[in-house]
Amino acid sequence: MVVGKSVTRIDAYDKVTGRAKYTDDLCDKGALIAKVLHSSIAHGRVKKIDTSEAEKIKGVVKVVTCFDIKEKHYFPTAGHPWSTDPHHQDVSDRLVLTDKVCFYGDDIAAVVAEDEVAAAQAIRALEKTVEYEEYPVVTDPIEAMKDGAPQIHEKYKNNILAHTEIRRGNYAEAIKEKDLVVVDKWYELPSVQHCHIENFICYAYKEKGRICIVSSTQIPHIVRRVVGQALGIAWGKVRIVKPYIGGGFGNKQDVLYEPLCAFLCEQVGGRLVKLDLSREETFTSTRVRHAMKIHIISHVRKDGSLAARKAELYSNQGGYASHGHSIVAKAMGSFPQLYPCDNVEADAYTVFTNRSVAGAMRGYGMPQMSFAMEAHAEDICKVLNLNSREYRRKYLMPKGYVDAFSKNEQYFDSFNQCLDKAMVKIDYEKKLKEYSNQTGDIRRGIGMSVFWYNTAVWPISLESSSCRMVLNQNGSVQVQMAETEIGQGADTVWAQMTAEVLGIPFEDVHVVSTQDTDVTPFGTGAYASRQTYVGGFAIRQTGLMMKERILKYAHELTRMPEFNLDIVDGNIVRTTDGRVLMSLGELATTALYSLENSQHITSESTYQIKSNAYSFGCCIAEVEVDIPLCRVQVKNIVNVHDCGTLINPALAEAQVHGGMSMGIGYALSERMVFDDKGRLLNGNLLDYKLSTFMDHPTLDADFVENPEPTSAFGTKALGEPPVCPVSGAIRNAILQCTGVAIDELPLAPQNVFNAFSKAGLLK
Amino acid sequence: MVVGKSVTRIDAYDKVTGRAKYTDDLCDKGALIAKVLHSSIAHGRVKKIDTSEAEKIKGVVKVVTCFDIKEKHYFPTAGHPWSTDPHHQDVSDRLVLTDKVCFYGDDIAAVVAEDEVAAAQAIRALEKTVEYEEYPVVTDPIEAMKDGAPQIHEKYKNNILAHTEIRRGNYAEAIKEKDLVVVDKWYELPSVQHCHIENFICYAYKEKGRICIVSSTQIPHIVRRVVGQALGIAWGKVRIVKPYIGGGFGNKQDVLYEPLCAFLCEQVGGRLVKLDLSREETFTSTRVRHAMKIHIISHVRKDGSLAARKAELYSNQGGYASHGHSIVAKAMGSFPQLYPCDNVEADAYTVFTNRSVAGAMRGYGMPQMSFAMEAHAEDICKVLNLNSREYRRKYLMPKGYVDAFSKNEQYFDSFNQCLDKAMVKIDYEKKLKEYSNQTGDIRRGIGMSVFWYNTAVWPISLESSSCRMVLNQNGSVQVQMAETEIGQGADTVWAQMTAEVLGIPFEDVHVVSTQDTDVTPFGTGAYASRQTYVGGFAIRQTGLMMKERILKYAHELTRMPEFNLDIVDGNIVRTTDGRVLMSLGELATTALYSLENSQHITSESTYQIKSNAYSFGCCIAEVEVDIPLCRVQVKNIVNVHDCGTLINPALAEAQVHGGMSMGIGYALSERMVFDDKGRLLNGNLLDYKLSTFMDHPTLDADFVENPEPTSAFGTKALGEPPVCPVSGAIRNAILQCTGVAIDELPLAPQNVFNAFSKAGLLK
Repeated sequence: MVVGKSVTRIDAYDKVTGRAKYTDDLCDKGALIAKVLHSSIAHGRVKKIDTSEAEKIKGVVKVVTCFDIKEKHYFPTAGHPWSTDPHHQDVSDRLVLTDKVCFYGDDIAAVVAEDEVAAAQAIRALEKTVEYEEYPVVTDPIEAMKDGAPQIHEKYKNNILAHTEIRRGNYAEAIKEKDLVVVDKWYELPSVQHCHIENFICYAYKEKGRICIVSSTQIPHIVRRVVGQALGIAWGKVRIVKPYIGGGFGNKQDVLYEPLCAFLCEQVGGRLVKLDLSREETFTSTRVRHAMKIHIISHVRKDGSLAARKAELYSNQGGYASHGHSIVAKAMGSFPQLYPCDNVEADAYTVFTNRSVAGAMRGYGMPQMSFAMEAHAEDICKVLNLNSREYRRKYLMPKGYVDAFSKNEQYFDSFNQCLDKAMVKIDYEKKLKEYSNQTGDIRRGIGMSVFWYNTAVWPISLESSSCRMVLNQNGSVQVQMAETEIGQGADTVWAQMTAEVLGIPFEDVHVVSTQDTDVTPFGTGAYASRQTYVGGFAIRQTGLMMKERILKYAHELTRMPEFNLDIVDGNIVRTTDGRVLMSLGELATTALYSLENSQHITSESTYQIKSNAYSFGCCIAEVEVDIPLCRVQVKNIVNVHDCGTLINPALAEAQVHGGMSMGIGYALSERMVFDDKGRLLNGNLLDYKLSTFMDHPTLDADFVENPEPTSAFGTKALGEPPVCPVSGAIRNAILQCTGVAIDELPLAPQNVFNAFSKAGLLK
Repeated sequence: MVVGKSVTRIDAYDKVTGRAKYTDDLCDKGALIAKVLHSSIAHGRVKKIDTSEAEKIKGVVKVVTCFDIKEKHYFPTAGHPWSTDPHHQDVSDRLVLTDKVCFYGDDIAAVVAEDEVAAAQAIRALEKTVEYEEYPVVTDPIEAMKDGAPQIHEKYKNNILAHTEIRRGNYAEAIKEKDLVVVDKWYELPSVQHCHIENFICYAYKEKGRICIVSSTQIPHIVRRVVGQALGIAWGKVRIVKPYIGGGFGNKQDVLYEPLCAFLCEQVGGRLVKLDLSREETFTSTRVRHAMKIHIISHVRKDGSLAARKAELYSNQGGYASHGHSIVAKAMGSFPQLYPCDNVEADAYTVFTNRSVAGAMRGYGMPQMSFAMEAHAEDICKVLNLNSREYRRKYLMPKGYVDAFSKNEQYFDSFNQCLDKAMVKIDYEKKLKEYSNQTGDIRRGIGMSVFWYNTAVWPISLESSSCRMVLNQNGSVQVQMAETEIGQGADTVWAQMTAEVLGIPFEDVHVVSTQDTDVTPFGTGAYASRQTYVGGFAIRQTGLMMKERILKYAHELTRMPEFNLDIVDGNIVRTTDGRVLMSLGELATTALYSLENSQHITSESTYQIKSNAYSFGCCIAEVEVDIPLCRVQVKNIVNVHDCGTLINPALAEAQVHGGMSMGIGYALSERMVFDDKGRLLNGNLLDYKLSTFMDHPTLDADFVENPEPTSAFGTKALGEPPVCPVSGAIRNAILQCTGVAIDELPLAPQNVFNAFSKAGLLK
């Protein structure tokens, strides 16, 4: 059994020694350099760009502006599986370069030059010549929805990309019940950026008449399709290669600049062109987490039970559709499920504004909604003077709950198991007692928050995964998967699963880490916390197919019937007496070189997944609040997750640590600040306060392993969940010790000051 | 029908624009540089190498000598399929570095340095310190076989690596027949070198604990195995990548320096190490064509019929076994077949000498034996005053001839068809008449020569080929093959075959040109003129499997039974009325993204080939001989081949042109000159007289297309054959017009002078 063990990740040594190759490492040093001219206004139209000065600069090979885009192939950028149904396709609203500017940082021209310096000089030369027709700017979704607000995309009235609703029971009737307490609150979540270490980078070249792009992406097969759409060429004319990547967190689940890079490559006759974004460009011109304003009204009985609830979610989409409405829709979808209620109304709006484009980011709407819902739960407790833990014990989604749409079921009592474990670990009861009724300037507080998360995207979209295995002469195996290693340890998990299914040593599994759409079996990539869940099916099925072939060949060699044979630790074993008949290596070598029956034993298959699974967890945080300084520090924090069976506990723990770190940043310090012209003011790692390990206490992670019955290996989502409950727990801890409910993230001094002032806590 | 058309090769534009990537293009510019210290004696033992001065040189990272090889993993180098039967395995006589020197240029030490200069300085520093124990040197195989000759490898008595024989009928009795004319002649063939444009080059690095080597090789999967053997590690721990290569001609059908490069990489902790041989090293220390001395005695009746024949072949193996005896054995094998005779004795000896190692080279023994046999045929004609053409018409292998061992059959009257076509093309009869009875100093002559060649290696060795096909959304397909593109156009031919089998446009086939042993289906590579023959089976089988899957899916979508469906020009067509039901692209897209039945349609299979096929052809050459200058020029030359059905006539013609060029060089100018110490005197492209297009007339190539019934596409060998008959035809043309039989190649002024002097032609 290697599944369930904390084996060392297979890329560990290559990564710590610097031997692992990332996109820039692989790019030929003679590559032409592309740079993008981004708009310096947030809304308007480019009237003119004069390229003559830029073209005179030595080393400049090509200058292309939005006016050179003759064939307008609008394309979508969301890393979603394609749908052949046009109604389920993502919005195609991007061009490689545009004269219609929708946000500060839009792409209006580009240069290709022999080197970085010439390219940068050309961009500066171009920049001076741009003439705009400026339009009024709107940056807030609620403002943008008003009649008379600036219209960003013609076809979307009041800038509403989409509005969906949930109606359950009869809200209007239910609120008439007597003696209900109304808790009516707004929660506000800022835009934040993923801040992956490796900025977006790709390079493109032509080979044999096709375009090949090496890119730091999570979704190579989707990038292939989108580049085909963007260039107006057959998708098979595009090849995408994905090496190791230095983080993605959902930003690289969008097709960012591969289409432009490919276009520029075509413009220079197919020569090698590299497009390497700066940190500043990554901030303004890739994707951000959706800022949201969430309004929740709960009509609560004295015992805390919910008579009726209403929610309004306003999601700030920025200038283009990207993943669009699916993110706030997912957030809203959790509303009637987390604390089930018979009478629910909810409305979610995705609204275009002239801000940086929002897209996928770890949690996909749930960090926002978890914060709002768990802050709101605590607000209810506060109003009704209920115990936080008891409230959750009584009203959270119970064991046996089934969601009508996804068919997901809470098979176990996961919430209570997770909370109980977390409480023990952090010594909750004792601390809660200790931290009650403090009055000093510096106080300790403790708070909790839960979340749930769906695994993968079925039934909303396609879920399928393909796998290929190749047997070597020594009995070792290569595994090819299209679900990508993006730092989370997917490759290691594939190796463990493969070893397990085939009955071979872990060391004998060689995962082909690099995806190449020409040869990698089809799959849609890394997102939706789906990798182990979805990939597990493909590996199990493909491995069993390979095992069947192997045992069939073993039968030929040994005359033992297949049903009396098995593969154990890399050997062909007779199950009747446990005798080793031969090693798998002997069998593989014989099969390959047999003069009678030569076979290269490989197997390949696609598994279509028509299920989904709930993932659960909680966070409990202990904070120290310095009231006069308006400073919040996290002193202890624990996340406990039920993500099903753990394939690799050490990797799972690391995954949770990363998510907790991201959650702490989201809670305490991170926010993209835009001025009223839509200009990002802190788009760099000096001014943007990314949380670092200096801001963290020891991150404590633990698990409740309830095996998911729909899953090939008992697993379910873990990638995104850890970030979801953190900010709510911290916010609730502050509330616990100060009595002040802060409803806007981040809980940084400025917001804390406003809240404490209002509450009269500051003298 | 795209098979049979001269479509443009798929790599044409990339190659002429310099965009195609070769090994050195792909190697990171920061690679460490390895250089080899070759022995400066041809036979002896290294007593001492002092590394201290070399190690002091700035930039030197590692110095390794033969004394550092603690674990002696002897390995073979021949690019043959592995055999699990030890008796059929190639001789394992190499070490990555050796203290026992067997030829001038043997590998005794190596350095790894930061750059070329430091590496070269270190080699020079090392060189000065080497102390040898010198042994007597032997360079001629017949001398080497004598008792008392220096023994090169202990276990081979009289330096004989192998001796095989053919005995048919009763030679001793048959020669007693009355009135037989005896033609008893020796023919002598020199060592020549392949002179591929790209010298041997490879680089190695560690990734995830495995060794990865990118190499200019013809045989990636075999290199993997041999590197495993040489390092004493599991073969699955080795990964080989083969990019485009700049020629191989059999030299890169040996595993040359990949094991040493891998070993050096290990010595520097797995860092990237490049080993790029110079032209001089390629001459001395890679492989050469076997020099041979061939003795043929024919006992001939007055009508030219053969009563009995005897042949002795002495093949100069050089210092190590490499491909060993298989080459001269193949040569000898043709002896009883080309001109069938009831009473035959033949003996072939492969003999070690202290010369550069002989290995595979285009023709694999047949250029030598074709020369000898066709010179001998002409000598018989001369003695008996028979017409060359009539003699061949009567006595060459007839239609219906079957070889008992290979089961190859001459299904058509190929020799006569080829000869007749060639005679018309060069106007043979007229010229022969015209050139008879010349007496001047400058004469024209015309001569002919034929050959046959087996396709592939069955039944001597394994023949199998694997293929994988991957369907894209637009109905285009990737094809992966392990048989390699080495300049001959294999990739283009795969694309044509695939398009043909699947019924899709040629442009829609994307051949994965680079082999990567991790993901490329298993196959043994490019050699034995087997590619189109062997690969054709795998493509046909795999393509039909894919077609079956496609039509099955089409049945699901259309309800039309599969037997009424076909794929025509990339469309799913109902055969009953020819109606296009959908494009293959629509089907592929539907299959991939179906929410009901998602499938990535791919197929993969191994085809084991248990057959072989005769390939035939002839050359007629017209020469001008300047007797006083002893100069021979080829004025007209034509090769006509029956290689079965042509897949791509233009590529076939180019293949023949290349072979004819190589044949002209072999005939007229090329020879490696060794002194009696075994030192190569002309190992560079200034002193070695490689033939160039300046030395050629227009090369005329034509074909007789007799479809081979054992073949998937009617094809058989063409890669090596064109070189085989050329030198014999030229030699026979000189004989025709001067009466002088020159029996030693090359027909360069020195040999011509000797022969003409002896014949009294020079005043």
